[in-house]
Parts: sequence; structure tokens; C-alpha cells
Amino acid sequence: MKYLIGIDIGATNTKFVLLKGFYPVKKEKIPTPKNKEKLRKVLKENVNNLISNIPQSEIKGIGIGVPGPLNKERDFILNPPNLKCLSNYPLAKIIEKDLKIKTIMENDVNCFTLAEAMLGSGKGAEIVAGITLGTGVGGGIIRKLKVKNEKLKVEIIKGAFGSAGEFGFMTINFDGENSGSLEDYCSEKFFKRKKIYPVRNIKGKEKKSREQISNEFNSKELEEKAKKGNKRALKIFQEYGKNLGIGISNIINTLDPEVIVIGGGISKANKIFLKETKKEIQKKVLSPLSKKSVKIKISKLKDFSGAIGAALLVKS
Amino acid sequence: MKYLIGIDIGATNTKFVLLKGFYPVKKEKIPTPKNKEKLRKVLKENVNNLISNIPQSEIKGIGIGVPGPLNKERDFILNPPNLKCLSNYPLAKIIEKDLKIKTIMENDVNCFTLAEAMLGSGKGAEIVAGITLGTGVGGGIIRKLKVKNEKLKVEIIKGAFGSAGEFGFMTINFDGENSGSLEDYCSEKFFKRKKIYPVRNIKGKEKKSREQISNEFNSKELEEKAKKGNKRALKIFQEYGKNLGIGISNIINTLDPEVIVIGGGISKANKIFLKETKKEIQKKVLSPLSKKSVKIKISKLKDFSGAIGAALLVKS
Repeated sequence: MKYLIGIDIGATNTKFVLLKGFYPVKKEKIPTPKNKEKLRKVLKENVNNLISNIPQSEIKGIGIGVPGPLNKERDFILNPPNLKCLSNYPLAKIIEKDLKIKTIMENDVNCFTLAEAMLGSGKGAEIVAGITLGTGVGGGIIRKLKVKNEKLKVEIIKGAFGSAGEFGFMTINFDGENSGSLEDYCSEKFFKRKKIYPVRNIKGKEKKSREQISNEFNSKELEEKAKKGNKRALKIFQEYGKNLGIGISNIINTLDPEVIVIGGGISKANKIFLKETKKEIQKKVLSPLSKKSVKIKISKLKDFSGAIGAALLVKS
Repeated sequence: MKYLIGIDIGATNTKFVLLKGFYPVKKEKIPTPKNKEKLRKVLKENVNNLISNIPQSEIKGIGIGVPGPLNKERDFILNPPNLKCLSNYPLAKIIEKDLKIKTIMENDVNCFTLAEAMLGSGKGAEIVAGITLGTGVGGGIIRKLKVKNEKLKVEIIKGAFGSAGEFGFMTINFDGENSGSLEDYCSEKFFKRKKIYPVRNIKGKEKKSREQISNEFNSKELEEKAKKGNKRALKIFQEYGKNLGIGISNIINTLDPEVIVIGGGISKANKIFLKETKKEIQKKVLSPLSKKSVKIKISKLKDFSGAIGAALLVKS
């Protein structure tokens, strides 16, 4: 069985994985360089480290997950919102030339969904939608086709122009003050808008004015507060869960997947928001069969799912 | 070339079409009976009229479009919101038994989209999304697959549980007074909520109180007013067009189709709302390539597209 190399380029970190068949044999994580020449150099070095001692003939290829929409042929990244230096950069072609290893490129959340559909929480399901909750909200769609007398065909649903599955950009609220997209309501942006004030009944000690002590929190800090019993923090997560339920219901009414896999940093707090999400899905999905049957699952492959999925690109 | 029979059962009217190959040779339209035994009888009679003089061996089959979600095997209608008498009724099986002609059943908007994708405004496109605007908002997704050495495979995208493409049930607004789904904002329900008051500057003649003279309108009446220059009616259609643009943008961000075909009664007023729809799509779609390339078109096959699509079910 040959080796596959997967690279997941994130806005903050870049992850590397070496797969033998379906099994990860090596993992690596480094900060993402902020300009393309440095990134090119670092990718080259790290891949070389990963495959030292492995003969070139044993390596099947490199898959790269990138944070942005791509053109349909997958040779250019179009306008990546969180890594602007890669805009219109033919990264896969350059790495292929540098390393003399076949290299392909794909949207990072498509890679995440591919890994979960093949080896993680979507294993065995026919249609899998992936959604990642973090700085932004990303999405991907995988479909497995059983063709007579042939092995299972695993397909990334790309759409006519290469950009299917961008769930984060669905409008779920257009009216009122806080109009916005699923990303506005289910990424870190949502938590940033919320304020937390000290509990007022600690014998007056923290009775400062609200304006003075409000603060910007991220989901991790708020999760800790919620776990310690802060009711306001818990309430924020319940609201978050409901928002996510609205977004996922839209995905179900449109695509009717068998499994929805939730990943990304915020998904780690699922114990305090997923109940609300599921409740909302029961209210908002049209088909009685779909709402009874669809499975909402958390990522099984966790932090390296994107890199594993990138490696699997080479296999499929 | 054999004959195909298509039946489109709507909440108000039922349409029949007889196709020879791809060409409609006969059309018929009758009011839809409100109970299933009467419907069964009427379908039998009308199909028999349609095929009098044609030998049974020349008839390939019957396709029926029904207004509701179906189970995945397409033998039962699940909970049709506008034709409750058909709930859990195995209509296709019964008609097949009555007429001794192979009969299959499909969601009506899937039939509409199939007809438009094969013979209408979506001809030549790889992925076509259909959306119908009327009493409700329906949707369908067609994909054409080029398989090597085989003829084009035209597929209705059904999802894992049979209910993909229910665009009308996407939430596009969850906040504020008027929270609701695309159907709330883009079907006749939208126009019903709007009020029109007489122009106030006709020398005081119509200066009654607003409450006294407001009225419930449908899209057709409002369209006439708009065409006669009623500014309030025009404004309502502009708002409608914007709402539709939000919904269609959600479809594009999720499915990235090549063509979106708009049908249903309200689509006939497209000249006064489609400009706003297209403007909104340019604002709300993420991928620069998709928003430049996607085509928004009006149904070409008009009133009989559902029945034609139902007939085509038998062919594909």
C-alpha cells in the first residue's frame, strides 16, 4: 500500500499528515507563514521531513486543503477571505514542480467532509454534509455512488462552477438590526457580539456599570464560564445552538443528507449547544422522514481531519 | 417512438399531456377532485380519452407529478400540504393496476425541473435548480452526468430520504416580527400580507382612513396595478424581487447550479421583479465565478411543464 501526503493550510496553523493506505503514520503542525514564498519553502521542507527514508516510488501523491473557493479545475484559489496572499496562486502546480510529486488542491472543508465521510462520523452514509464552526463557517458535500460491478465512487459535490457547499454564506436573517448569514450567527463573530457582565448578587462587590465591565469573549472562554454555571454564558450557547439548528435545517431542506458532521473549534462545546440545535431541526425541516432519520454528528477525526481528507484526495 | 403519458396533479387543476418522443401531441386540463376515489376515477377516464386509438403496445408508461414530498422509493406521498386526501396513498400503484400501464410518481416540482432541464430553459446545462412561485414555493434539482461511452444520464437529485430541493422551507429570516421561510416571503402569502391604499393626491376624493380601504390582493391583481403605474404596487414587487434574490443566493451558495429556472404563477410578473432579484444575487453569492456565470431564467414550457416532466420520468 502506497503513502499519501495530506496538507491542511489554515489561517493560523498548517497541518501535515502521512497516510499509509488509510492509516496516519506521521502528523505535524506548524504556524502558517503569511506570504506565499515563505509558505512554499516551508511546505517543501516539511514534506521532505515527512517522507525522509521513504523511496519516491512508494509515494502516491500530495493533497492540499486550502481555505477558500477554487476554480472548477482546482488549479487556482479564488479570493481566500482569511489568507489573502494565496489569491489566484497556483499552489498545487508549484509544489508539484518543487517536489516532483503529483499534487492536487481542494477546498479545506471539502477535505474535512471527505475524511469524515470515508473514515469518520459519516462512514457508511450515502450523502454527507460537513460544516465547520470556527473563525468562519465552512461547508462541504460528499456523495458515495454505488456503480454496478465497480467499487464505491466517492465524489466531492462541486457544483457547476466549483463552489457548492458554501453554507456559511446562506442568509438566515435579512430583517432587523442583526441581519446576516449563517457565518454571522454561527462563527466566532456571534460570540464576539455578545457581552457578559459579572453576576450582580455577589454582595454588591461587582456592581459596576455594565458599560465599564462588558468584554469581548471567544467561544472557548464563554464555554468555560458556562461550565462553571454562568447562566448568561449558558444562554448565549443556547441561542447559538438554535441559530445552528436553523442553518442545518436549511441544509436538510435543500440537500437531504443522511449525516451532517460538525467540526471546527466551536464544535468542541457541542455538549452545551447541540440539544437546542436538534430541537430546532425538528421544528424547521419539512419532510417527516428526513427529520426522523437524519443524523447530526460531531467530527470523529478532530484536528487532523482536514489533512487526512487532503491525503485521501490522492487516493480517490 | 413510443407514447408517454404525463399527469400533473395540482391543488387546483390537474393537467394531462401525451408525448410522442419529446413532442406533446395532446394536452388536457381539468379541476382536481377533492377526494381520492373521485381522483382515481377521473385519472382513469382522462388517460383513456388521451390514448383512445393508440394500441397499448405503443405506450411506454405514465408519470404522475404530485404536490408533496414522497418516500425514497416513490410509492407513497408523505403529507402533501395542499392536497391532504393523498396522504400516504399509493396512487401510482393503483393507477398502474387500473390501467395496466407502468406508472411512476414523483414530486411535481421535480417534474417541472426535469422538463425544463431536458427541453426548456435548462437545456444543455449540467446542474439545474428549479423553483416555482405560487400558492407555495417548491423546488427541484436535476443533474446530468456524462458517463463514458454511454448516453447522458439525467438524474433527479432526491437526497438520502427523498426530499432534497425543498427550497421553500429554508428560513431566510428568523428575527423580528415577520420571521419566516422563503415560502412566507416569495409565495402568494407575501402579497396577502401587503396592503394597498388609494393614491392620496387625487384631490382628496379618496382620502378615507387607511383601515377602511386596505385590501387583500393576490400577485395578479397587484401586477395589474403596478403596470398601471401604482407606485406602492411596484414597490411591493421590488421587495418581492429582493426576497427572491436572497433565497436564490442561498441556493447558489449551497448547490452552485449552472441554471436556475423560475416557474409558477407569480413568475409571470418577472418583468417587474427580476431586476431586483439579480441585484441581490450579486450582493449575496460568495464565489465571484458563480455570481458571474449562473443563469437565472424563466420557465420556457410554462403551464404544462409539470405534466411534460412527469411524462419524461417514464423515458429516463
